[in-house]
Amino acid sequence: MNFSQWATGARQTIEATLEAALAQRQPRDLGRGDQVLHEAMCYGVLGGGKRIRALLSLAAGEVVGAPAPWCAQVGAAVECIHAFSLVHDDMPCMDDDALRRGQPTVHVKYGQAQALLVGDALQTLGFELLAELPAPAEQVVRLVRVMARATGLQGMAGGQAVDIAAVGQSMSQDRLEAMHAMKTGALIAAAVEMGALCGSPSEQDLSALRHFSEKVGLGFQVADDVLDVSADAQTLGKTPGKDAAANKPNFVALLGLEGARGYARGLHQEAIEALAPFGGRADRLRELAHALIERTH
Amino acid sequence: MNFSQWATGARQTIEATLEAALAQRQPRDLGRGDQVLHEAMCYGVLGGGKRIRALLSLAAGEVVGAPAPWCAQVGAAVECIHAFSLVHDDMPCMDDDALRRGQPTVHVKYGQAQALLVGDALQTLGFELLAELPAPAEQVVRLVRVMARATGLQGMAGGQAVDIAAVGQSMSQDRLEAMHAMKTGALIAAAVEMGALCGSPSEQDLSALRHFSEKVGLGFQVADDVLDVSADAQTLGKTPGKDAAANKPNFVALLGLEGARGYARGLHQEAIEALAPFGGRADRLRELAHALIERTH
Repeated sequence: MNFSQWATGARQTIEATLEAALAQRQPRDLGRGDQVLHEAMCYGVLGGGKRIRALLSLAAGEVVGAPAPWCAQVGAAVECIHAFSLVHDDMPCMDDDALRRGQPTVHVKYGQAQALLVGDALQTLGFELLAELPAPAEQVVRLVRVMARATGLQGMAGGQAVDIAAVGQSMSQDRLEAMHAMKTGALIAAAVEMGALCGSPSEQDLSALRHFSEKVGLGFQVADDVLDVSADAQTLGKTPGKDAAANKPNFVALLGLEGARGYARGLHQEAIEALAPFGGRADRLRELAHALIERTH
Repeated sequence: MNFSQWATGARQTIEATLEAALAQRQPRDLGRGDQVLHEAMCYGVLGGGKRIRALLSLAAGEVVGAPAPWCAQVGAAVECIHAFSLVHDDMPCMDDDALRRGQPTVHVKYGQAQALLVGDALQTLGFELLAELPAPAEQVVRLVRVMARATGLQGMAGGQAVDIAAVGQSMSQDRLEAMHAMKTGALIAAAVEMGALCGSPSEQDLSALRHFSEKVGLGFQVADDVLDVSADAQTLGKTPGKDAAANKPNFVALLGLEGARGYARGLHQEAIEALAPFGGRADRLRELAHALIERTH
């Protein structure tokens, strides 16, 4: 099975896990309200996205021989957290985006009040999926702790707060990296760690995987900044350098386009090196690192 | 120690638990952003409120002889969920309230983007507090499951969605009660159940406590609707019947003022009867039921 086949199958598994979780939580038909919320949650979390984080959980589980169904459920939980952050990010008081993957965003389609509740309830669903995992309780508690730390004040939410305050500010490379480590890196790292925690990783395993995640998460962001410039330049009607135009600190502004490309390649290399102790068991993680950093879209 | 002394001490314990949780999560000083989020989270969750839900957790813990520090941490987690819901509820796209307890609401003081993140991060903190509880893992997992179910689509968030859609609609008493059971009842019931789950309750204990919570949660809401009319009528410059004026279904509209008062008294009585098996161990719960339903403010 090549990577593309594996990824397609894995995405189907994640989609089915999320669909089942939502199907099990049917609204109670007390007027239209909770039916709309249920429908809007499905709209917000199903049927789209690359499921990068869930694939990382599955691939990290393979490294330590963890049960694949547990990794899928954990991956689905992380995707709930990711989807909740997108729904809230798109709202007018944040990035005010009307489209995501070519479709109207949740608040455009269902209104802002529902979008707020959709994000809230998707975060909850993420934790609920962890609590329902049929794994030993010690493992479940550790998973909840890891996901909560990655999601809250010292992870994703904190990184977003830094990002909001950073518009129009200059930022050193160290601070830019620390911001991204919180804003996107924390949940990516949690996805990897949580996949591994579905098995019985040694402290050395976890340490190597954390090193891998750190490099992949940062490389992913640098690649994003490169694409923001180079992909847009090929698209008529779009301003090249959207982040730069929005006055957001970014790696291309700091390092130049070629410098940022070289930096991403180096991070990719370091990520691959971190996986050396795992041999062939980490092949899916290697392929994912390649797909995330050397991507063209 | 009388009820008032107990409640004062309990509130101080909850406040200290929340303060310590936030003090342990200091921002990393990456520009102003996460400092502001930290400050706004403190503003949103500390220094106010009756801490009804946390008191219920502590009182329910007393019934089964659960360790009080665990009940306090569980109560603090529930208060994080309650505070998150208030911060989001107050936002312009929901109830658009500028004041809460006489102070500017979070979005008025810190802006809507921060308010959105404050709510998000307070929900996360609630789950993080559970995951950090030094109790056996089986108990912790059960606590996470109970709190998640009460918070999400089939609990608080679902009830809020029903409430949004109910403005201007007529609603039978059954549906109105089912809506409140989700919107406010679910978290009140979770607070009670979670306090008990810090000990080793029997299924009979849990069943009696659930019956108690159902009556108390509903009685609390009926009392709220009564106060909405009777308290406001004494306050010049305020329209008596705020919910009625907002075209929201409510118990006074359905039952009349005296009918609603009688209904609340009956619910209070049923709640007290549900506690009969516990004898004196449930005295704090009895006093809380009295305070919640027979309140005058």
